[in-house]
Amino acid sequence: MSNKLTRREMAMLAAAGAAFGQEGAEATREMEMFGLKHKMPAKPEQVVMLVYPGMTALDLVGPQQVFGYTMGMQVHLVWKSSEPITTDTGLRLLPSKTFSDCPPDVDLLFVPGGGRETVALMEDRAVTEFLSRVGGKAKYVTSVCSGSLVLGAAGLLRGYRATSHWAVRDVLPLLGATAVEARYVEDRNRITAGGITSGIDFGLRIAGKLRGDDFGRALELTLEYDPEPPYGTGTPKKAGARVGQAMTQMYRPLQAAARAAAERVAKGVKS
Amino acid sequence: MSNKLTRREMAMLAAAGAAFGQEGAEATREMEMFGLKHKMPAKPEQVVMLVYPGMTALDLVGPQQVFGYTMGMQVHLVWKSSEPITTDTGLRLLPSKTFSDCPPDVDLLFVPGGGRETVALMEDRAVTEFLSRVGGKAKYVTSVCSGSLVLGAAGLLRGYRATSHWAVRDVLPLLGATAVEARYVEDRNRITAGGITSGIDFGLRIAGKLRGDDFGRALELTLEYDPEPPYGTGTPKKAGARVGQAMTQMYRPLQAAARAAAERVAKGVKS
Repeated sequence: MSNKLTRREMAMLAAAGAAFGQEGAEATREMEMFGLKHKMPAKPEQVVMLVYPGMTALDLVGPQQVFGYTMGMQVHLVWKSSEPITTDTGLRLLPSKTFSDCPPDVDLLFVPGGGRETVALMEDRAVTEFLSRVGGKAKYVTSVCSGSLVLGAAGLLRGYRATSHWAVRDVLPLLGATAVEARYVEDRNRITAGGITSGIDFGLRIAGKLRGDDFGRALELTLEYDPEPPYGTGTPKKAGARVGQAMTQMYRPLQAAARAAAERVAKGVKS
Repeated sequence: MSNKLTRREMAMLAAAGAAFGQEGAEATREMEMFGLKHKMPAKPEQVVMLVYPGMTALDLVGPQQVFGYTMGMQVHLVWKSSEPITTDTGLRLLPSKTFSDCPPDVDLLFVPGGGRETVALMEDRAVTEFLSRVGGKAKYVTSVCSGSLVLGAAGLLRGYRATSHWAVRDVLPLLGATAVEARYVEDRNRITAGGITSGIDFGLRIAGKLRGDDFGRALELTLEYDPEPPYGTGTPKKAGARVGQAMTQMYRPLQAAARAAAERVAKGVKS
């Protein structure tokens, strides 16, 4: 639940705090609100989140909700065109920028995951070239879920430790990355998170990293992030043999498709 | 991360299973997939999720992602018009139905929360009349976050135990409900959940309730819902005095606005 009034006040405070409008200044300023101290960037951070048909909406909206509440961030949802895109569960949402009018200097690049359509993106030159160009100079290069496979296909994870959705994590080494079993992996400026819901943990960690722990704490309370997973089956290990094996079997065709795409990418073969 | 192929297979299996296409049949059938057994409805469930300008996207997308993965559910995003709506953090998404072409027989009605705009909805007659009409005969009447205040303003929580976002939970009694401090409250066919991220827990519980525990377990694994909140400050109690008091202070104007609206609604006063 947001508090619009307070977010407007935040923006006013931020502007009044002489933190903004100093183009080129690199120093981080401090802002106090209700007794909590937050780090503010010298100028607004440009956050570019890729959106695409077939993506998993929750991969995007977990962190987008967090970034949207983070004063001083300008969030852009970027795709090839500005037409509505339809997610894997039929939600239709609108990009706010295209590859051609995306801000040139990006602080944080983010790629959400999905199923077959995400695997197809690994061999979509327009996409991998855009990511490579923007990600090559972005301050942070990030993903949730199978989005890391697309970063990997764009050459952005070579030599980095990274993670992905549990069902396709093993594909990462084919793209030059070291696969790590974790909810969140940070290696220098590459930050990758696990499957779907990990985007919330990811978003909060980024917010805390950039605005300080007090801001992270306050935002976690705003999101009322005190999870009670009803079954305790959130990883293959925790799910146990019966459920784990059923779902591994279900994901086998997708895993095979991702592996084949990664092998073609690694060999420079056109699909 | 979704597995499109498998979801198509699910739909095919469901159709082949003679579960669907038997209009009027009330019996629940069983469907087996990869050794897990799932309950299937006699006919597809109609799920109506309210969307509106200023809503909190994650309140909606948590459960929408879950319902979209639940075979046999038809999910409709409903608002006054079919124009794009903008959420509290600037995400633009498209309704799929309007109040006038919404399916008449609804199995599950859902209302997401937000800030000032949600409070305004409490006194929006077109909205409360729609909710009252649909909710009065829906199988389940549900909400996440401050969405319960809108249900309450529509008269749908009178005499029920319910919850809301922690910052406005105390407003519920003014609308005839008993406020409960919990992540998820089920009282007969009213199911209300707490702030923002509780929508994931809520969605999984509904999926498990309607398709059986094996489906809930499988979906929790698909979502990789093994949360690691970075700060452990997801409730005012857990956040401790310093952060809890700061955020309570921040939310005070919103709480006051919600209380005033609830008092006018209770007295039948027009705003």
